[in-house]
Amino acid sequence: MGNFKGHALPGSFFLLFGLWWSVKYPMRYLCKKNKSVCYLVSISGHRRLDIIEGIVKTSFALIGMIAEQFVPDGPHLKLYNNEEKHWDHLMNWQHATMYLFYGISGIVDIIVHITPVVPLALDRLMLAIAVFIEGFLFYYHVHGRAMLDIHVHILLLVAVFGGSISIFLEVFLRGNIVLELLRTSLCILQGSWFWQIGFILYPPNGRPEWDQTNHDNMMFITMCYCWHYAFSLLTVAVSYAIVSWVIHTKLKQVEPLEMGLLKSSEKDQEVEEEM
Amino acid sequence: MGNFKGHALPGSFFLLFGLWWSVKYPMRYLCKKNKSVCYLVSISGHRRLDIIEGIVKTSFALIGMIAEQFVPDGPHLKLYNNEEKHWDHLMNWQHATMYLFYGISGIVDIIVHITPVVPLALDRLMLAIAVFIEGFLFYYHVHGRAMLDIHVHILLLVAVFGGSISIFLEVFLRGNIVLELLRTSLCILQGSWFWQIGFILYPPNGRPEWDQTNHDNMMFITMCYCWHYAFSLLTVAVSYAIVSWVIHTKLKQVEPLEMGLLKSSEKDQEVEEEM
Amino acid sequence: MGNFKGHALPGSFFLLFGLWWSVKYPMRYLCKKNKSVCYLVSISGHRRLDIIEGIVKTSFALIGMIAEQFVPDGPHLKLYNNEEKHWDHLMNWQHATMYLFYGISGIVDIIVHITPVVPLALDRLMLAIAVFIEGFLFYYHVHGRAMLDIHVHILLLVAVFGGSISIFLEVFLRGNIVLELLRTSLCILQGSWFWQIGFILYPPNGRPEWDQTNHDNMMFITMCYCWHYAFSLLTVAVSYAIVSWVIHTKLKQVEPLEMGLLKSSEKDQEVEEEM
Amino acid sequence: MGNFKGHALPGSFFLLFGLWWSVKYPMRYLCKKNKSVCYLVSISGHRRLDIIEGIVKTSFALIGMIAEQFVPDGPHLKLYNNEEKHWDHLMNWQHATMYLFYGISGIVDIIVHITPVVPLALDRLMLAIAVFIEGFLFYYHVHGRAMLDIHVHILLLVAVFGGSISIFLEVFLRGNIVLELLRTSLCILQGSWFWQIGFILYPPNGRPEWDQTNHDNMMFITMCYCWHYAFSLLTVAVSYAIVSWVIHTKLKQVEPLEMGLLKSSEKDQEVEEEM
Repeated sequence: MGNFKGHALPGSFFLLFGLWWSVKYPMRYLCKKNKSVCYLVSISGHRRLDIIEGIVKTSFALIGMIAEQFVPDGPHLKLYNNEEKHWDHLMNWQHATMYLFYGISGIVDIIVHITPVVPLALDRLMLAIAVFIEGFLFYYHVHGRAMLDIHVHILLLVAVFGGSISIFLEVFLRGNIVLELLRTSLCILQGSWFWQIGFILYPPNGRPEWDQTNHDNMMFITMCYCWHYAFSLLTVAVSYAIVSWVIHTKLKQVEPLEMGLLKSSEKDQEVEEEM
Repeated sequence: MGNFKGHALPGSFFLLFGLWWSVKYPMRYLCKKNKSVCYLVSISGHRRLDIIEGIVKTSFALIGMIAEQFVPDGPHLKLYNNEEKHWDHLMNWQHATMYLFYGISGIVDIIVHITPVVPLALDRLMLAIAVFIEGFLFYYHVHGRAMLDIHVHILLLVAVFGGSISIFLEVFLRGNIVLELLRTSLCILQGSWFWQIGFILYPPNGRPEWDQTNHDNMMFITMCYCWHYAFSLLTVAVSYAIVSWVIHTKLKQVEPLEMGLLKSSEKDQEVEEEM
Repeated sequence: MGNFKGHALPGSFFLLFGLWWSVKYPMRYLCKKNKSVCYLVSISGHRRLDIIEGIVKTSFALIGMIAEQFVPDGPHLKLYNNEEKHWDHLMNWQHATMYLFYGISGIVDIIVHITPVVPLALDRLMLAIAVFIEGFLFYYHVHGRAMLDIHVHILLLVAVFGGSISIFLEVFLRGNIVLELLRTSLCILQGSWFWQIGFILYPPNGRPEWDQTNHDNMMFITMCYCWHYAFSLLTVAVSYAIVSWVIHTKLKQVEPLEMGLLKSSEKDQEVEEEM
Repeated sequence: MGNFKGHALPGSFFLLFGLWWSVKYPMRYLCKKNKSVCYLVSISGHRRLDIIEGIVKTSFALIGMIAEQFVPDGPHLKLYNNEEKHWDHLMNWQHATMYLFYGISGIVDIIVHITPVVPLALDRLMLAIAVFIEGFLFYYHVHGRAMLDIHVHILLLVAVFGGSISIFLEVFLRGNIVLELLRTSLCILQGSWFWQIGFILYPPNGRPEWDQTNHDNMMFITMCYCWHYAFSLLTVAVSYAIVSWVIHTKLKQVEPLEMGLLKSSEKDQEVEEEM
């Protein structure tokens, strides 16, 4: 939907997932390092979380598709206007297609965690494909619009294709915390940038419109995109710190003595890796 | 051949191979996980299948080359028109060149499975090269045509180069089920898209031609390409489910007790991998 | 800052880091191969060095940001000119943004070496991101300038994006001496090229200006860039040779007999690896 | 040098190296598989061969540089014409720069095999850089020429950058026969294509010139490039077959009985790998 809400909706979805991941992945990583705390969050608990995540993802995709189809000025499942011989609401259909692939990704997430027959890594592949399709459609989406409109969407593609490559690498390096944090930060970037696009293209509350052809505006927006990323990195860092603090607090309560020993041996190991 | 049949022929080849792979690779993967069923399909049987696949591939390539050369309006092996001083039927020659590399790939498939002297991974490298050459020729092929004609072919390149990269990765990660399924889905996408191109550029049964310069048509076709891929993914999923169901039915017949134990231990292993 | 000093400052930063790395990485690599010398430079010493490096990096970034903001013709933290309704000193702000990300990278360097809670590889990821952001901003930075001006900046991007990819690979292959030397050489290239850009665009001492539209100038500059890289490779090689010579001299002093044996067994191992 | 000889010279260099590699790498691979023959070609022999290869490479680069500088219409080390205020013979200088990097690569080849202090993988990195620089200079080299002239050089870039990526992968996967054969085939392709460029742009013996603006010519040349690659693959295959035949003939002479056993056990291993 070419309006503010049509950008705020996916933006909120991405932000929610990014924030959730910024809690989930540090937690898993730190749990794995401090095995004695890990039994607090059992393995089947992790699996259950992943299934719930898949269900939420599928629901978000469904909400998105329905919103794109059945908003008052939507296509209501009508694709071709036979009387006037032209395509109907192609924009909404394209957005719905993007949501569709995220929906498939959500379903695959659920399946791989329910049955051991399907290889686990398929969930990462499907997510990488869904993100790629989003970028692919956006790339052709903006053809023939105003300069600034194109630019804000093209900037988005850096996060989208970067995310897709990073997720594809996770197929082979599952559980790599660095890739997971990279994905998280790019997801938050996408979310906040969707909101930014909404504010730029459809200024709310009757604020003045942006000059779509001003070169300086373009340069500012490019820089602004980087600031969004800095903000996204900061968010992930703060979240990591909080999770780490919570786990270490718990750690002290559980086994104050043994942990101290464990930690020093870990430190040595780290040092060895580094050398 | 610039007509409907010239697109339906390679389309059918790709569809056949894609469908065959969507049976073969899940079967091998599930066989490997349930070793006790594997003796039903012996190792030499797998090898024989691969050789037959190579022979079929080579035959398809040969059929394609002969069809391109000896159709009524084909070049009949004549490359240069000496009287009128111009190249003869360059399109057909280019298509024949594409088939040629698939033929080489088929021959390499046969060789690596017959003799242990040649490294196995060469079959993947040669297939990656064949797919790359197809994309490379297509890229320059469409130069100077109508907008829609170019667009439908350029879209194809996403599947072609994506497939080429994915197959190249298999050189180093042979037997990775995720890459094999990705390749399968991209192959089916190519097949069904070739048919779609035929329908778009040469509408059969006297249907109205597509407006080659309409921007909306381009946007619809981009989206349609994504739908083809969703359909391709669905096909692979259904095929995987059927193969899995057949194998597990057999499994129960063979060793109803022992298998149960095996499966639970497998589940544990999966869980460990995931953590 | 669009002047000579604005290019000489980052150029000097990159040169200093490149030269430092051309000493540090060969030293570590040769230390690891000759373990008996390694105790001279203890493990905690290595860690301390890395922390100091992070502090220096952060300081450089801070100096750069302050210089860009508070030079006489700088923005002094003012981004938008409300009276004249236009952006203020966007160039300086963009440069400051580049420095900002290097600053973040420096802080991450410090953190990962102070606490074992944060995964080590994050420092490489953050550096790769900082370098990528530099390239990303430069790419849009030069829009609409003279041909030669664009060209000298675009050439820089080869080193920048090459460096970013190389550093990203280090996330997974930490401690790979080949990647470290590649990074070092690209860093020196960037440093010396920044100086070269300064000399080309702002010829000091009243020398004649370059003709910005001359095609021959462009061709010379492309070649000149390659010479800079040859010079950069030479620098790394000389530095490697000196470090190696120093370590082997020390080696002879420490354990003249034992070392000889060790070295010959190493030689055999190398031969095996090669085969 | 913009003439026939200026393309035939590097073409011959690449062809010689390609043909040599198409013997060397299959020999090493098959030697490693049949260890009992390997003592015929000792380890130090392999090392000596690599050093000689480095010396030959350096010599070729030197010959190329001298030829570019001191041909009758060459620059004779003069870069800038001070009287007429323009650059002198930039083309020759660019070609000399390309040769320079191959020369550096040759020197690195020699060094890594003489001293164990320098990591082996550096020779692959330096070769990858040399090939990249060749492509980089070619990319800007052809700016502003006729369409056909640009096209034949751009086609070359596919082999050049493909080769550079493939060699860079060898840094991490040294001794991978598939990558080595890929590199060999791309090297032969470059060699034969340099000759082809010479024939197209400077037809010898007073043959008619090619129409540089004819679209059909461009399409034919693209296809012709693929045929060159098919020919290159055939060359590598024939060379591999001959080397394999020679080694197996020798094998039978040496240990007719034991080998038979070894071979069958190898076959089993291959089968396992495949499964």
